[in-house]
Amino acid sequence: VNAPVIAVPDGAPEWLLTAVRDGGARLGPLEDADALVYVGAKDAIPTLPDTVRWVQLPNAGIETYLHAGVIDDRRVWTSAAGAYSDTVAEHAVGLLLAGVRGLVTAARLVSWDSSAVGSRITGLAGSTIALIGAGGIGRRAIALLEPFGVSVIAVNRSGRPVEGAVRTLAAEHIDQLWSAGVDHVLVAAPATDASHHVVGRDELAALKPTSWVVNIARGSLVDTDALVAALAEGRIAGAALDVTDPEPLPDGHPLWTSPGVLITPHTANPSHRARVALAARVRDNVARFVDGRDLLGVIDTGAGY
Amino acid sequence: VNAPVIAVPDGAPEWLLTAVRDGGARLGPLEDADALVYVGAKDAIPTLPDTVRWVQLPNAGIETYLHAGVIDDRRVWTSAAGAYSDTVAEHAVGLLLAGVRGLVTAARLVSWDSSAVGSRITGLAGSTIALIGAGGIGRRAIALLEPFGVSVIAVNRSGRPVEGAVRTLAAEHIDQLWSAGVDHVLVAAPATDASHHVVGRDELAALKPTSWVVNIARGSLVDTDALVAALAEGRIAGAALDVTDPEPLPDGHPLWTSPGVLITPHTANPSHRARVALAARVRDNVARFVDGRDLLGVIDTGAGY
Repeated sequence: VNAPVIAVPDGAPEWLLTAVRDGGARLGPLEDADALVYVGAKDAIPTLPDTVRWVQLPNAGIETYLHAGVIDDRRVWTSAAGAYSDTVAEHAVGLLLAGVRGLVTAARLVSWDSSAVGSRITGLAGSTIALIGAGGIGRRAIALLEPFGVSVIAVNRSGRPVEGAVRTLAAEHIDQLWSAGVDHVLVAAPATDASHHVVGRDELAALKPTSWVVNIARGSLVDTDALVAALAEGRIAGAALDVTDPEPLPDGHPLWTSPGVLITPHTANPSHRARVALAARVRDNVARFVDGRDLLGVIDTGAGY
Repeated sequence: VNAPVIAVPDGAPEWLLTAVRDGGARLGPLEDADALVYVGAKDAIPTLPDTVRWVQLPNAGIETYLHAGVIDDRRVWTSAAGAYSDTVAEHAVGLLLAGVRGLVTAARLVSWDSSAVGSRITGLAGSTIALIGAGGIGRRAIALLEPFGVSVIAVNRSGRPVEGAVRTLAAEHIDQLWSAGVDHVLVAAPATDASHHVVGRDELAALKPTSWVVNIARGSLVDTDALVAALAEGRIAGAALDVTDPEPLPDGHPLWTSPGVLITPHTANPSHRARVALAARVRDNVARFVDGRDLLGVIDTGAGY
């Protein structure tokens, strides 16, 4: 039998073509294709012939495609969910440690001020961390955090126990999280209608003056205005954000100059790392498609990710 | 039999007295004492009667006492080495992650500049870390780093294999370290004559433009002028320092404004954490003294720590 034909967009980079070939497929034009491995602008997906049975998207979070209505039910769509988990989880732990070790304050010092930094150091050991979202990133974060001696309370859709968490809450019972004595919050869930402002005014009010909020998911999961207010009133210690709402965060926004805020401009998965991880995912999923095995990252349009 | 008598300095805090009593000793004046649990200025140790068989110092690094000549050979002296390892190792890993995740650059942003941060992110996974000093802090750092997927090459005095390190070098063979493809350096050794400028010009020259140097030990272990030069010439990515030489680092020193430098002003073991850890160590060592068991942190004046 002939290997399936997979199309890639015009001008796709050579490493993507190599990944498709290494997965065991033939490259061909979209009109002859069994599948499309897409890279490019989120609003520029071409019209797909019915013969295309599978589309691989390059992003882990795909809410923009869903909102644009490009993800139809006439074929299987896969995201890159999980492909970037290792680097994003490492970033998340780096952001959290930067918070609890006073590094945000330290990075802005130009004079030896031990008390300014020392007074902000609480440390991770012994703290309780709320992990909102326990997909690939969240599970990897649990593994990285394990030796630090923290207790993780995980929140996922099903409530099915997450390995390494002391407790797992179903998203519908997330209210219980905020009375559980949470020290820090790590936001790692997809952006869906249900997760919009999952950390808002009331949730921030349940935290502590020593609490850090880390968001490596999507800006919309945290209510920015409520966060600015909580920071200004010293009700939490800080926020370390790889994503913001709005994004990009405009110049002059109060988050830029808040003493408790660290912003990495959506770089948890930097492009040079993303390329390597996406190539590996494409190669793997193409091989699965060629063999008729289950694909990784199949999008559930009902769930929204 | 009566419990031994232990003296503490006038004005010692109540938690220290409690720790001595909880260890099973009686408190009493120095002239009647079997031991002294010291806190206070490093140059204000009182003259000790010969009946004092043991002195507990509050610091992990005791080179200042040694240089001042106060540590005699007429009794056992113990440092607090190891007591602060957990918090200092957590700090060290936080500093290293801050470096490799671009957080030093990010903390100084006031505008959404993804390439400025993204281009500085290399990540820890897959990197080789030189650990200079494998005492309590170093061994704890290995445990914390383990899930990140790094390879640690440890350097200790004896060369006896350190658990979790892919390779252990005796300090006398440290030259081999610099040809081993080291990505990052974590300095965690005591300050001795042998460790002075253990990271100097030649060692920095063996590193990479992506390398970070982390020092949570003592400033004298890194040659500051050589570090400033390596940073200015872009021969390494950055340095994250809890200790400096000179210390405190004077205002206007080039390290304060170097884009690759993060300084926490000797706060890896912040006072509020140190108090709890020292109390636990004192209680433990007093109990050992009462029982005639081996003390923790016995100082080897020949080794210098």
